[in-house]
This record gives sequence, structure tokens and C-alpha cells, in this order.
Amino acid sequence: MNLKKEIREIPDFPKKGINFKDITTLLKNREAFNLVVDSIVSEFKDRNISKVVGLESRGFIFGGAIASRLNAGFVPVRKKGKLPAQVLSETYELEYGIDSVEMHVDALNKEDVVLIHDDLLATGGTAFAALNLAKRAGVKTTYFSFVCDLEFIHSSKKDEIKKFNPQILVRY
Amino acid sequence: MNLKKEIREIPDFPKKGINFKDITTLLKNREAFNLVVDSIVSEFKDRNISKVVGLESRGFIFGGAIASRLNAGFVPVRKKGKLPAQVLSETYELEYGIDSVEMHVDALNKEDVVLIHDDLLATGGTAFAALNLAKRAGVKTTYFSFVCDLEFIHSSKKDEIKKFNPQILVRY
Repeated sequence: MNLKKEIREIPDFPKKGINFKDITTLLKNREAFNLVVDSIVSEFKDRNISKVVGLESRGFIFGGAIASRLNAGFVPVRKKGKLPAQVLSETYELEYGIDSVEMHVDALNKEDVVLIHDDLLATGGTAFAALNLAKRAGVKTTYFSFVCDLEFIHSSKKDEIKKFNPQILVRY
Repeated sequence: MNLKKEIREIPDFPKKGINFKDITTLLKNREAFNLVVDSIVSEFKDRNISKVVGLESRGFIFGGAIASRLNAGFVPVRKKGKLPAQVLSETYELEYGIDSVEMHVDALNKEDVVLIHDDLLATGGTAFAALNLAKRAGVKTTYFSFVCDLEFIHSSKKDEIKKFNPQILVRY
């Protein structure tokens, strides 16, 4: 199965000039959905992952599936103000202005072997923020997986993520 | 395992007087997380579920896990403006004002047997909106599962959901 064919491209969403990668067509196809989950589980099943960290909100979908299949726990990294208890916060730059993501301060610990998952690696801004959250929690080891990589986008933060040799299933 | 003990209660979040049910403490605990997934999968494994519908955004976590374990597809119901292609939209009332949720118009079809999942059943507003989206798509059968039910909240929409005999794991 060619996964790229299962991903729909939507021109000019969310704004003019962006060719949005819509994974909902992949998600609703049970064969494609489960092929993605199987591929990620197969890559990480022997690495003793204790927690899967999913990035809000599309990273929650495969993140939850992978956590269940790896018999791991799940930790959400959310946009500012969504988590109810004490959080660690990381700020990252957007095209205009800044944004931040948060994780509960008690979500990860020094014993954890963590797989950070998101559907899309674009500028690497949120993935790098999640990496810093995991570092501040003092986790033992961090791995990454992404469904798609927009390889035509380059940044120094993305270079840092690439040093972790992330699993990537579809490249643009 | 007593699942209710794994759910943290946060007083006065997101506003004064609300005792927020924080499931992140359950999610990060691999035994508790997988007990919830196993319980839902066990209930629905013989009902030929073709697609799991998860409600943004906490419903994506268990929704993705359940879809994978049932070998089904996954369909997100999202807040307004998040989905990139043509959508069906349903409006529901909030305490002050209205809000709406959306689903891609091509997400479900007449052959589908659907499990709608969210972590929390409170007023039933979003679950009822999701039910209407599934009805408008003409699905064959609809089931519901929720991790928690706030039984002290009553509404006519919630009564409609209860007619479907939803699976509920933790009651308040």
C-alpha cells in the first residue's frame, strides 16, 4: 500500500499557498490506519517504551493507538491553558509571534523511555518544544516518530530532531 | 483496579465551582490506560465496528487506541474550522452562547457501524451533535462509549444518548 496516496492534499488551507496534508482520508481507511500503527509498533516494540507522548491534537490519534499496542502509558502535550494541574511550559516561535505548549510536571520521570509522536514534522517547532519538556523531566531516553515529513522545510530545530533519527513513513 | 482512583480531581478548573476530572493521571499509568482500552474493546469486539468516531480532543486518545485494537478506521469530529475539506456541521448550546462541531462529509457512509467515543459524558451536547452527524451520514448502526459519566448532570440530549445504552466505566 502506498500511504502517500491515502493522504489527501487540500490547496490553500489553512491559508493561501499552503498545500495541506489531510490525513483524515488515511485515518478512516482501516487498512491504511492499521498499517501506520503496525509500522510504528514494529519499529519500537523492542525498545522498552514506557510512555508515548502525543502532540495536540492529531498526534493524540496515532499516539493513543501506539501506546496501547506497546502496552505503554500516554502523555499529552497540549496547547497553553488546557491542562488542569501544574505544568512545564515551552515557548516556540511562529511565523508571526510566539506560542507555547505544556505538559504536566508529574507526567514523566527519570525512569521513562519516551516515544514522542506527531502526525506531521514541518518546522519542528512543537517537536523541539516537546523534546525540551522531556529533557526537563529528566527522562532516560527519547525517540521520535512522525507519519509525514515536509522535507522541503528546513530549520535548526528540525536539524536537532533529525539527530534522533526519527521514524518517518511518508516524505514530501 | 479502581479506575476512579486513577482519575485526579482538580477543584475550580476551568472555572470556580467545577471539580475537573483529570484523566491524564489514568493515561500515563500503563496498567490503567490499557485496562480502559481492553474494557472497551472487549465490549465492542463482536459488533463489527467499521469506524471509531473520536471527539476532539481527549476523545482522540482512547478513540485511536480502540480503532486500532478493533481493526477499524478512525474519524475525528472536530471543533469548527479545523477540518480542511467539505464538512457537515452541528451546532450545540453552551452555558453562554453556541458552539459547533464538524465532520468531513465523506467520513462515514451507509455501510458503517460506528462507535462514538469521548472521555467524558457531561451535558451530552457534543455527543448528541456527533450522533446527528452520524445520522446525517446515514450510518447503519451507532454505539457509544465514555470513560466517565457525570451522572449528576441531566439534560434532554443526555437522555437521548442514554437510549443507546452507552458503555460507561466510571460514574460520578
